[in-house]
Amino acid sequence: MGEAVEFFHTNGFTKNCVNQTLINDIHNNDCWYEELIDVDLKWSFALNRILYKGTSEYQDIALLDTKRFGKVLVIDGKMQSAEVDEFIYHECLIHPALLCHPNPKTIFIMGGGEGSAAREALKHKSTEKVVMCDIDQEVVDFCRRYLTVNGDTFRHKKLDLVINDAKAELEESNEKFDVIVGDLADPVEGGPCYQLYTKSFYEKILKPKLNGNGIFVTQAGPAGIFTHKEVFTSIYNTIKQVFKYVMAYTAHVPSFADTWGWVMASDQPFSVNATDFDRRIDARIDGELLYLNGASFFSSTTMNKTLASSLLNETHIYTEESARFIHGHGLAYRHYCQKQESGGNHYDEEESD
Amino acid sequence: MGEAVEFFHTNGFTKNCVNQTLINDIHNNDCWYEELIDVDLKWSFALNRILYKGTSEYQDIALLDTKRFGKVLVIDGKMQSAEVDEFIYHECLIHPALLCHPNPKTIFIMGGGEGSAAREALKHKSTEKVVMCDIDQEVVDFCRRYLTVNGDTFRHKKLDLVINDAKAELEESNEKFDVIVGDLADPVEGGPCYQLYTKSFYEKILKPKLNGNGIFVTQAGPAGIFTHKEVFTSIYNTIKQVFKYVMAYTAHVPSFADTWGWVMASDQPFSVNATDFDRRIDARIDGELLYLNGASFFSSTTMNKTLASSLLNETHIYTEESARFIHGHGLAYRHYCQKQESGGNHYDEEESD
Amino acid sequence: MGEAVEFFHTNGFTKNCVNQTLINDIHNNDCWYEELIDVDLKWSFALNRILYKGTSEYQDIALLDTKRFGKVLVIDGKMQSAEVDEFIYHECLIHPALLCHPNPKTIFIMGGGEGSAAREALKHKSTEKVVMCDIDQEVVDFCRRYLTVNGDTFRHKKLDLVINDAKAELEESNEKFDVIVGDLADPVEGGPCYQLYTKSFYEKILKPKLNGNGIFVTQAGPAGIFTHKEVFTSIYNTIKQVFKYVMAYTAHVPSFADTWGWVMASDQPFSVNATDFDRRIDARIDGELLYLNGASFFSSTTMNKTLASSLLNETHIYTEESARFIHGHGLAYRHYCQKQESGGNHYDEEESD
Amino acid sequence: MGEAVEFFHTNGFTKNCVNQTLINDIHNNDCWYEELIDVDLKWSFALNRILYKGTSEYQDIALLDTKRFGKVLVIDGKMQSAEVDEFIYHECLIHPALLCHPNPKTIFIMGGGEGSAAREALKHKSTEKVVMCDIDQEVVDFCRRYLTVNGDTFRHKKLDLVINDAKAELEESNEKFDVIVGDLADPVEGGPCYQLYTKSFYEKILKPKLNGNGIFVTQAGPAGIFTHKEVFTSIYNTIKQVFKYVMAYTAHVPSFADTWGWVMASDQPFSVNATDFDRRIDARIDGELLYLNGASFFSSTTMNKTLASSLLNETHIYTEESARFIHGHGLAYRHYCQKQESGGNHYDEEESD
Repeated sequence: MGEAVEFFHTNGFTKNCVNQTLINDIHNNDCWYEELIDVDLKWSFALNRILYKGTSEYQDIALLDTKRFGKVLVIDGKMQSAEVDEFIYHECLIHPALLCHPNPKTIFIMGGGEGSAAREALKHKSTEKVVMCDIDQEVVDFCRRYLTVNGDTFRHKKLDLVINDAKAELEESNEKFDVIVGDLADPVEGGPCYQLYTKSFYEKILKPKLNGNGIFVTQAGPAGIFTHKEVFTSIYNTIKQVFKYVMAYTAHVPSFADTWGWVMASDQPFSVNATDFDRRIDARIDGELLYLNGASFFSSTTMNKTLASSLLNETHIYTEESARFIHGHGLAYRHYCQKQESGGNHYDEEESD
Repeated sequence: MGEAVEFFHTNGFTKNCVNQTLINDIHNNDCWYEELIDVDLKWSFALNRILYKGTSEYQDIALLDTKRFGKVLVIDGKMQSAEVDEFIYHECLIHPALLCHPNPKTIFIMGGGEGSAAREALKHKSTEKVVMCDIDQEVVDFCRRYLTVNGDTFRHKKLDLVINDAKAELEESNEKFDVIVGDLADPVEGGPCYQLYTKSFYEKILKPKLNGNGIFVTQAGPAGIFTHKEVFTSIYNTIKQVFKYVMAYTAHVPSFADTWGWVMASDQPFSVNATDFDRRIDARIDGELLYLNGASFFSSTTMNKTLASSLLNETHIYTEESARFIHGHGLAYRHYCQKQESGGNHYDEEESD
Repeated sequence: MGEAVEFFHTNGFTKNCVNQTLINDIHNNDCWYEELIDVDLKWSFALNRILYKGTSEYQDIALLDTKRFGKVLVIDGKMQSAEVDEFIYHECLIHPALLCHPNPKTIFIMGGGEGSAAREALKHKSTEKVVMCDIDQEVVDFCRRYLTVNGDTFRHKKLDLVINDAKAELEESNEKFDVIVGDLADPVEGGPCYQLYTKSFYEKILKPKLNGNGIFVTQAGPAGIFTHKEVFTSIYNTIKQVFKYVMAYTAHVPSFADTWGWVMASDQPFSVNATDFDRRIDARIDGELLYLNGASFFSSTTMNKTLASSLLNETHIYTEESARFIHGHGLAYRHYCQKQESGGNHYDEEESD
Repeated sequence: MGEAVEFFHTNGFTKNCVNQTLINDIHNNDCWYEELIDVDLKWSFALNRILYKGTSEYQDIALLDTKRFGKVLVIDGKMQSAEVDEFIYHECLIHPALLCHPNPKTIFIMGGGEGSAAREALKHKSTEKVVMCDIDQEVVDFCRRYLTVNGDTFRHKKLDLVINDAKAELEESNEKFDVIVGDLADPVEGGPCYQLYTKSFYEKILKPKLNGNGIFVTQAGPAGIFTHKEVFTSIYNTIKQVFKYVMAYTAHVPSFADTWGWVMASDQPFSVNATDFDRRIDARIDGELLYLNGASFFSSTTMNKTLASSLLNETHIYTEESARFIHGHGLAYRHYCQKQESGGNHYDEEESD
């Protein structure tokens, strides 16, 4: 840009050029992916291409090539994962639990059909087996076929890919695992995953399949200042009923336009500190992490005042009883169904707090 | 769909209700504020009303009533501040510096025409005088008139409102201040505020106006994983050349769709810890903070691996001379705001400079 | 801006100016009304202001000030009428029927709560009485209050405003009328107006209330090359079963993003020609028409080849039997409900034709 | 959906189904092509796919697969042509002129790189040669490669495809033609096509290349009630200075969201009537027309009162002198540059008329 600048000194052409670039950019950006994050909020990404579209028995699925966030996986009109920043979500989902475990050999992933959670788990040298259990064959096939970044993962000999309901699979399994991972849609009441976030599920089905020093970790939905009461605090509080040690942490994921939350739990204390964490990254993981290190992980477990208070004061627990079956998806789910729950309307509480 | 249908026979309300509500919401949300965050990214808020629109000599200004973020202040098509979460930005801008100072009596705010920075500073019992120095009379008038939340601030007897270029004002001033605050537009080269982020400005003009134990703090632009190199790391690095002790910290601001950064600096060490910080909040501040407490403030000074590395390795320094090279920016940067200096029409000079 | 402007005067000013204006317009046009014309088509108008919003028992109603089309009336998320081009719709609705009638004294308007149809009817010197019969008190009140252009109409001494179902009102009436006008929502099956478009309604209720040489005219929905089979051809064909002489005509209404249709019918032949039509405009109407004259009216009764063929070949008739009651609004109505009719999917037929 | 329909007869379930379908459609329609028709008006089509994108030396070009309008050709962010309704534009461009000509053998098309104008001309049995002269090799290549509907046309032995400026090509040509067709971008001053709409071009270059009974026809820009003064009336008036007999006509093209205009001219009278027109269609054209027949063509030459008056009263003439060179494209051109012309601001005139 240097020379151009000099040139512009002499004849004022810069402005033309600048604006011409703007106009060209506007010309070029006439195709958009538009996500209704909520009924009052939209998020739109300029598109290079619509790579693939498909429909499974239950869901619409698409892979888009966006200018801002690279390849983007969209299921039922909700963005699931973006090429350029999925590493934040998946590093946070997998590594803290595996690094806090003394020697994680067997990992069970509930959901995770995209393959990225398994990919991160397979980076640990100690890993001997990753079971990835997703209910939707077609979504898994779509990701296996088109998400080339996870090609090696889907072909990895330590990966055991199962198409089944994770609850049924865990129930029937004779094995125990060092780490169980929840990479599932949010616990919307009546939604397909609600039952995988209830106290009784954690108590009676999941926890019995963890080895003695086993760790459970789950994605826990949005954790922004306005969104953390949708599911994050309830997931945290539900898990707290079942495990002795529970740790919540968050990270801002740009393509989600929000801060995200995770909850990790065990009946053993998490005795690792930042220095240990960094040492274990070096010793145990093949390749480099991009987002996490010891210092930042532990700082991410300290919430701002609003979230800290909400986590402390949450009383709601996900139970089988409070679930009612509702067909529907995405928006309808997230913003309406959950409010009909006995415990009242979380969203409104948040506002009156 | 068959089973669902049967289910609905028995109580069909839920589904109807959900979808009817959704459809009503869609009907109702047909007016939108649409912000081009960048040429490839849009962010749209459903509108209740367009409250006020105006045009100053240089800028378009509007106050919108949005469903998601409450009242929103928009200048030249860029959202500046949203009613529901401006507290995050302004608490982070003001309180850490004032709380780290032993006894902050005099505060000088560069920019801040909206009034919210002054409002936060005036919450400190020690504050004797807040000078708010903004260049744009009309923007200040607009905010004084329409941002009712800051009405008391604009009328506060400790507030000294000056319409002037902050550089000129500081240069001519005979006073020194305990805290100087930068609440300015980002240092886009050629932009109206660039000169207020340069090493020589900090060294020769700003620092001489700080009292001995004085603290300087400035907003430092977006600090997301993809945006932190736009200006955040350079601001940090520039300030590091001038002050002995420098501290950067961040927070996710939902309405900005990004994580934001601030940089605080002094020639005295920041000897306050989280416990002191909390004690001083209680002792010194009128009213409650919503976002900040000691623990979360200090955790926010620890960056993720990517940002930590970028801050460490940044070599760029804003100088009067270097007002040229910038990488990656939002639309505003790229297309218009660049290159302008003090005299005359900022907007057009942009190109010819 | 002074110096820059002078500079530009001497050379390529136009471009600079052009692009600057463009950029300013983009800044200014960040608030939009967005209408989902269909699930695959959106139409967005830049907003100056959101003037009024209200909710009646059944409908959401809003009055928006748009940059393109002036004040725009929106009901349930569908634009009803735009200040700058409603004259096209309302001239076409009212004047052909009144001008073809030898001496129209009494006019009955079904619907028309906006007041514009009555306004046009009252321009005829022969008019002695206009009955405007709309079912929604709140919509009428909203329009009376805010549509200032129709203020005189609502206060006109010849206007007889009735809040009632038009069918019931006609049935109970002892009067006969010279002209009956249908200014109603489209005949979507199960929609609130369907019953006012059926053969039996026309035969048993409407026609008996027309004087001997009376004329019936109705809006007849979209008449574009892709949309004319939604309702236009069926309305035409249904009316053809009941009246001896039937005439369809169309006009492009920019704010509707479509060509619109009307159908006029009588048991007397329409013996007026273009010259008579123009003479009667001069002799009978107070003020000037903007859109219609004799030549253009008669040319608008000649359809393009596709529409001509569709009108000729339509066999569907709206009957009480084929109607089923569906609650709902706008999009759902228009695009789905009607397809469940026995005659099959109109939209697809259209495409395979 | 069949069974569901039956079910709906018996109770109020329809709404559920309807809304679920709606919600699914909304899920599916998350990718959009968005066209800024003007700075205050947008038009958005749901996308199936982005088929191809390319950039020529001067222009961006894309072929999109839309749900509403089929394949859509976009150049520099402006839609040029949509699969489902380009027949309206191209039938109107080609057939009236060829049908009014006694025996059209040689046709020269200025522009028309898409191939559709040539395709229509080649349907006439009398046609011996079609010269299609477009300046942009890359656009022609793109269309030849991707617009499969015109594949036969591009390979047709009677087609003579020339890449050249149409003005230069006509000037240098030794031939005369029976029909010359203008299928060019609008005459924006300084735009690439302006010179092909001036009085002197028509008089000195184009007309001399017409045979004695030759006919000239050109697209003439938007002809809607608000847009007809942009270029339509001036093109008409300019041609009227050069030819004895001039005929303007219009048609609503849905994908353009506007009514479009064409102007046809000759020094021989157009003695054909509607019956002759229909007979000639049958006798001379291979295959069926979809839009045009004799009656509708002649009715389309009668304008509404506003347009008729504007055509009559237009005094502006495109001349070489009134053109000034302006860099830029599309929006900037169309909406700003032309207003700086000596004749004043057309748009405003239109409104005050």
